[in-house]
Amino acid sequence: MSSAASSEKFDLIAIGRACIDLNATEYNRPMEETMTFTKYVGGSPANIAIGSAKLGLKAGFIGKLADDQHGRFIRSYMEKAGIDVSGMVVDTEGHKTGLAFTEIKSPEECSILMYRDDVADLYLRADEVREDYIKRAGMLIVSGTALAKSPSREAVLKAVRLAKKNGVKVVFELDYRPYTWKSAEETSVYYSLVAEQSDIVIGTRDEYDMMENGEGGSNEQTTAYLFAHAAQTVVIKHGVEGSYAYTREGGTFRAHAYKTNVLKTFGAGDSYASAFLYALVTGKDLETALKYGSASASIVVSRHSSSDAMPGVDEIEALIAGQPLLHS
Amino acid sequence: MSSAASSEKFDLIAIGRACIDLNATEYNRPMEETMTFTKYVGGSPANIAIGSAKLGLKAGFIGKLADDQHGRFIRSYMEKAGIDVSGMVVDTEGHKTGLAFTEIKSPEECSILMYRDDVADLYLRADEVREDYIKRAGMLIVSGTALAKSPSREAVLKAVRLAKKNGVKVVFELDYRPYTWKSAEETSVYYSLVAEQSDIVIGTRDEYDMMENGEGGSNEQTTAYLFAHAAQTVVIKHGVEGSYAYTREGGTFRAHAYKTNVLKTFGAGDSYASAFLYALVTGKDLETALKYGSASASIVVSRHSSSDAMPGVDEIEALIAGQPLLHS
Amino acid sequence: MSSAASSEKFDLIAIGRACIDLNATEYNRPMEETMTFTKYVGGSPANIAIGSAKLGLKAGFIGKLADDQHGRFIRSYMEKAGIDVSGMVVDTEGHKTGLAFTEIKSPEECSILMYRDDVADLYLRADEVREDYIKRAGMLIVSGTALAKSPSREAVLKAVRLAKKNGVKVVFELDYRPYTWKSAEETSVYYSLVAEQSDIVIGTRDEYDMMENGEGGSNEQTTAYLFAHAAQTVVIKHGVEGSYAYTREGGTFRAHAYKTNVLKTFGAGDSYASAFLYALVTGKDLETALKYGSASASIVVSRHSSSDAMPGVDEIEALIAGQPLLHS
Amino acid sequence: MSSAASSEKFDLIAIGRACIDLNATEYNRPMEETMTFTKYVGGSPANIAIGSAKLGLKAGFIGKLADDQHGRFIRSYMEKAGIDVSGMVVDTEGHKTGLAFTEIKSPEECSILMYRDDVADLYLRADEVREDYIKRAGMLIVSGTALAKSPSREAVLKAVRLAKKNGVKVVFELDYRPYTWKSAEETSVYYSLVAEQSDIVIGTRDEYDMMENGEGGSNEQTTAYLFAHAAQTVVIKHGVEGSYAYTREGGTFRAHAYKTNVLKTFGAGDSYASAFLYALVTGKDLETALKYGSASASIVVSRHSSSDAMPGVDEIEALIAGQPLLHS
Repeated sequence: MSSAASSEKFDLIAIGRACIDLNATEYNRPMEETMTFTKYVGGSPANIAIGSAKLGLKAGFIGKLADDQHGRFIRSYMEKAGIDVSGMVVDTEGHKTGLAFTEIKSPEECSILMYRDDVADLYLRADEVREDYIKRAGMLIVSGTALAKSPSREAVLKAVRLAKKNGVKVVFELDYRPYTWKSAEETSVYYSLVAEQSDIVIGTRDEYDMMENGEGGSNEQTTAYLFAHAAQTVVIKHGVEGSYAYTREGGTFRAHAYKTNVLKTFGAGDSYASAFLYALVTGKDLETALKYGSASASIVVSRHSSSDAMPGVDEIEALIAGQPLLHS
Repeated sequence: MSSAASSEKFDLIAIGRACIDLNATEYNRPMEETMTFTKYVGGSPANIAIGSAKLGLKAGFIGKLADDQHGRFIRSYMEKAGIDVSGMVVDTEGHKTGLAFTEIKSPEECSILMYRDDVADLYLRADEVREDYIKRAGMLIVSGTALAKSPSREAVLKAVRLAKKNGVKVVFELDYRPYTWKSAEETSVYYSLVAEQSDIVIGTRDEYDMMENGEGGSNEQTTAYLFAHAAQTVVIKHGVEGSYAYTREGGTFRAHAYKTNVLKTFGAGDSYASAFLYALVTGKDLETALKYGSASASIVVSRHSSSDAMPGVDEIEALIAGQPLLHS
Repeated sequence: MSSAASSEKFDLIAIGRACIDLNATEYNRPMEETMTFTKYVGGSPANIAIGSAKLGLKAGFIGKLADDQHGRFIRSYMEKAGIDVSGMVVDTEGHKTGLAFTEIKSPEECSILMYRDDVADLYLRADEVREDYIKRAGMLIVSGTALAKSPSREAVLKAVRLAKKNGVKVVFELDYRPYTWKSAEETSVYYSLVAEQSDIVIGTRDEYDMMENGEGGSNEQTTAYLFAHAAQTVVIKHGVEGSYAYTREGGTFRAHAYKTNVLKTFGAGDSYASAFLYALVTGKDLETALKYGSASASIVVSRHSSSDAMPGVDEIEALIAGQPLLHS
Repeated sequence: MSSAASSEKFDLIAIGRACIDLNATEYNRPMEETMTFTKYVGGSPANIAIGSAKLGLKAGFIGKLADDQHGRFIRSYMEKAGIDVSGMVVDTEGHKTGLAFTEIKSPEECSILMYRDDVADLYLRADEVREDYIKRAGMLIVSGTALAKSPSREAVLKAVRLAKKNGVKVVFELDYRPYTWKSAEETSVYYSLVAEQSDIVIGTRDEYDMMENGEGGSNEQTTAYLFAHAAQTVVIKHGVEGSYAYTREGGTFRAHAYKTNVLKTFGAGDSYASAFLYALVTGKDLETALKYGSASASIVVSRHSSSDAMPGVDEIEALIAGQPLLHS
C-alpha cells in the first residue's frame, strides 16, 4: 500500500459481514423446486458499502473473509465495485462464508435459508480493527448482526470506541437477525450499548423493540432514550407505512414508499441505508435523504439481487421526480 | 405405514449422510467465476442408494435431514428414486444440510468447497436406529464419514451391532473425508472397529492407509488383517491402475478402468460401489462385479452430477460389452 | 419477602462471583504436601460484601450459585454475615461452584490452583438482574472477572446500565484474573466499556495496563482517560509502594501499606476495597479512606482466610492509630 | 528409562482416571457443615492399581494428569505405592484434575460432589497409548468411565485392540458414573463394544442394565450375551445380597459380603476388584477370588479413604478366616 493510498479519506467505512446470496434463478416456486441458484455478494454492511460506492461515495470495509473461492469472489467483487478492501482480513481457521439461499414463492412470500453457524465474518477479532484505518472515515457503519457473537462483537465494540475517540460519526443499522443471538436479553444489552454511542440510528420499529427488549414500544420513548445519549438522528421504519426521521433538535420527517413492481423483499433496508447516507454525505436535507432511501429501496425490491441491483444516482432521482428511467 | 410395507425386505440399507451438491453450472473455470450452481442430492451413502435403486435393487436409508427446504428436497428426490425413506428422521435442533460446491476447472482439476460443520446428518442418534428396520435388509452399507462425529458415530456403531446380531451383511465403504475428523488416530480407531466387523470392505489404497494409521501399507497386510476378523471380500482401489478384489478363500481379481470422456472426478466411488453391490446381489461372480463397478464409475465421471447421473443396467452392460449406448 | 424487606435500602450491592476457597490447613509447604484444606467463602465481590457487612454496611449481592452443598454453604455463610441474598439465584444447569486451592509456601510464595471452567457464577443471566433490586443500592460494586464470559458478562453490562439509569454509583473493581478471558484485547474492550461508565475505579497498576491493552501505562494517562468519561475517583495500587487516589477535581492522595506479619498475599485487594468503600459511605475524606483500605489489607494478609478474616472497624482504627489490637 | 526397566512385565496395567478425593475430615454431618477436607488419590482404575500393588502385584498405569500440584501429588503417591507411572502423561492444555468431595452424613447416606467437566484424564489421546507398554502386561484393566468422552474414549478403544492383538487379557470394570455420559444409548453402545471384547467383565447388576440399555435384566441373559463373545468370566454384584461369578464353562459361584463397621460406601467396588484380580493372578480358584473381593471391600468401607485404606493380604486373609486383625 502506498503512503498516498493509506492516507486516503473515506466517506464511510462499514464493518461486519460480507457473504454470499444464492438467489433462486427460477422464482415463483418453493425452493424445493428450484434447481439453480445465482451467486451474489450479500450481507447488510457489504450491501450498504456497495450501494454507496455505486452512488459515488468513497467506501471502505472492515470484515473477515473465508480463505476459499467464496471469500475470494467477495473480495474481488467489492474491489471492482470501488470499495477499499484493505481492511478485509482472511480467516486462517477454516471458517466458511455465510450463505443465504433465497426462496421467492411470490412477492409476498419470500424466505431465506441461512448458513450462519461459525461463519468467517463472526470471527473478526478486535486486534484486526485498526485505529489508523477507522480515523480515515467520516462515518463508521455498524451492522447489528456483527454484535451477535464473539469475537466479532468485541471487534465492533472496539471500532465504535475508536470512532468516538477520533470524531468519526457512528451510524448504527440495527439489522436484527434472530439466528446467532442466544436470547432477546443479550440482543438488548449490546444494541443498547452501541445505540447509546451512535450519532445516527436506523432500524425498523420491530428492531427498536428488540433493542428495548419489549414489544410495542413507541417512537416517542425510543427517541427520548436515544437523544438522552449521543444520537443526532433516529430513523424508524414502519414498512409499507413509510419511515420517520427524528432529530435531536425536535424535527420529525416522514417518507412514503414508492410504488414499484415488487419481485422480492430482500435488500430493501440496505439500499435504503446506502441512499439515505449518500444524501446526508452530499449535503442534502433530511427530508430529501428519506426520499433517496425510499426510492432506492423501491428499485432494489423490483430486481433479482440485493447488491448487484443497487441503483445509481440518476435512477433514484428519476424515481423521486416521478420519471422512472425506462431502462434500469 | 401398513404392516405389509413394514415387513418388506430390502436388498440393502445405507446409513449416513444425504446432502446437497451444488455443481458449477458453467465449468472449465475457477469457482470464483462460476455464477450459477445446479442442485443435486449428494453424499456417498445417498448416492449408493440412488445408484443401486436405479439398477433395480430395493434400497432403504437411515439418516437425518434438516428441517428445511434442502432436507425436504432430498427426501422427495430419494423417494422418487424408489428408495424407502421411512428410516430418515428430521432434525429438530436447527442443524443444516451439508453442502458441497463443486469446482470443475478441468477434468484433472476438480475441487470441492464443503459445508460440513454441525450438519444434520452427523446428528443422527443411536436411539433413531431401529432393529426392526435393519433386520429387513440383506446388507447394511456403512459410510466411513458417518463415523466422524458423535452422535452419528454411535448410531452407526449400533447399526453395525444390530446387523451382526440379525445376520445382515455389513458392507463398509471407507469413504474417508478429512474434514470433521479430529485426528488420524481417531479415524484409525473407528475404521478398525467397523472394518473388523464387516463382511465386505471397499476403499482406495489411501483410505486403507488411514484405517491402518500409516502410509504405504500393502494389500497383503491389509487383507491378512481383515481376513483375520470377519471380512469375506476386500476391494482395494488404486485409481487409474484399476481395482482389486480379494476373497477370504484366497482369490484375487483385478479390474481396469474403462476409457471415458472425463468431465470431473466426483461420484466415481459411489457409482462403483452401487454397481459392484448390484452385481453381487444379483448373483454375478466377483470378476463381473468388479467390471460393473468400473463401468458405472466411468459413466458417472463423464456426467455433471453424482446422483442424477447414475446409469441403468443396460448402459453398464453396453460399456462392458464394448458398445457404449449412444444416448445416455 | 415482605414489602418492608423489599423496600430496604443497601449501602452497596456487589455483583459477580461467590466461590469456595480451600486454603491449605498446613502451610509453609508446597501443595503437593498439603493433606488437608479448610473451606471458606471466596471470590472478590463476595469478599467485599462480607468485609463491608462486617464493618456495618448494609450489603446486597447479585450472583448465581451452584445447586449443591458448596452453593448452599455460600448462601448460608453470606446470609449469616448479614448480607441480603435475595438477589442470589440458583443455577439449574448443573454448573459447579468455582474453587481456589491456595498454596502457601512462604509469605512471598503463594499461588492458587483455580477451578473456574464453566462455574456457576459465570452463568448469571441478564434476565436475572432486576432493576427494582439495583435501584435500592447506593453503589453497585462490579468485579471485572464477572465480565470474562457470557452470559455473566451481559448480566453485568445490564446491571451497570440499570445503575446509571437509576442514579446508583458504579464502583468498578478491576479484579483481573487471566483465566477465563480469551485474549488481552477482549479484556481491554470490556474493561474500557465499564470503566467509562463508572464513578469509582479501583485497581492495581497492572490491571489498568490490561484495561489499556498495553504495558507500562502512566497514572496520568489513565486518569486523563477516565476523567474524560464518568469517573469521579480513581484508585491505583502499586503494591508495596502504596496506593494513590485521584479525584476528577485534580486531587491526588497517597497511602502507604501498614507493616504486618504477612502469612499470605490473598485477600489484600478485597479487604482494601471493602474498608475504602466503608469509609466513603460513612463520610470520611479520601485520605482517610485510603488509610482504611491499607489497614484492612494489612490485617487480612496476616490471617488464614480472605473472607472470615475481614476485620471490624475497631481493629482497622486501632491499626491506623498505631495501636494494633492485641487479639484479632 | 533403562532397557531393563522397559522390558519389565506387569501383572496388570489399568487405564483411565486418577483423581483427587477430598473426603470430609469431620463426618456424620452434611457437607455444608464440613469445614475441612482430607486429600487422597481416587478414581476407580487408580484405586484398583493401588489396591493390587498393596497386595503385591506389579501394576502399571496409563492415564493423563493435570500439570499442577494435584497432578504431581497423584503421580508421586502412585509411584510410592509401587506402581509404574511411565505410562502416565501430563496434560499440556490446562485441564484440571477431577475432584470428588465426599459427604458422609451416616453410613447409609453418603454422596459425592463431583468436578468432572473437562478434567485431564478424559483428554488422554490414542497416540499416547503405546503398544510396547501394553504388551508387557498380563491384564489390561479398563474402567468404563474412561469411555465417557473423546479423546479418552478412543485411547481406551485403541488400548483394548492392542491388548487383544498381543494376547493381553482384557478386564472390564463397568464403573458406570452418570456424569459425563450424554445418554444411556451412548453408554450402551460403548459398554457393549468393550464388553464383547473382554475376557473378564465385572460390574453391578445396575451397571449391566446400563450396558444393555434396559432395566431389570437377568444374569442369565447377560451371561448368555457375553459368553457368545469373548468373555471367560463374568462377575455380577448385587450389593448386600453378595456377588456372583459365572464362567464360560457353565460354573456359577456366589460370595457373601462380610460384616463390617461401615463408615461409608465409597471404594467398595475398587477394593473388590483389586483383591479379586490379585487372587486370580496368584492362581486361586474363582470361589476364593470372590471371597478376597468381598473381604477387601468390607475392610475399605470401614475406613476413611478409598485408596490409602486398601488392605494387605494378611488383613484380607484374616477376615476370610474369621479372625479380623485387631489393628488395621
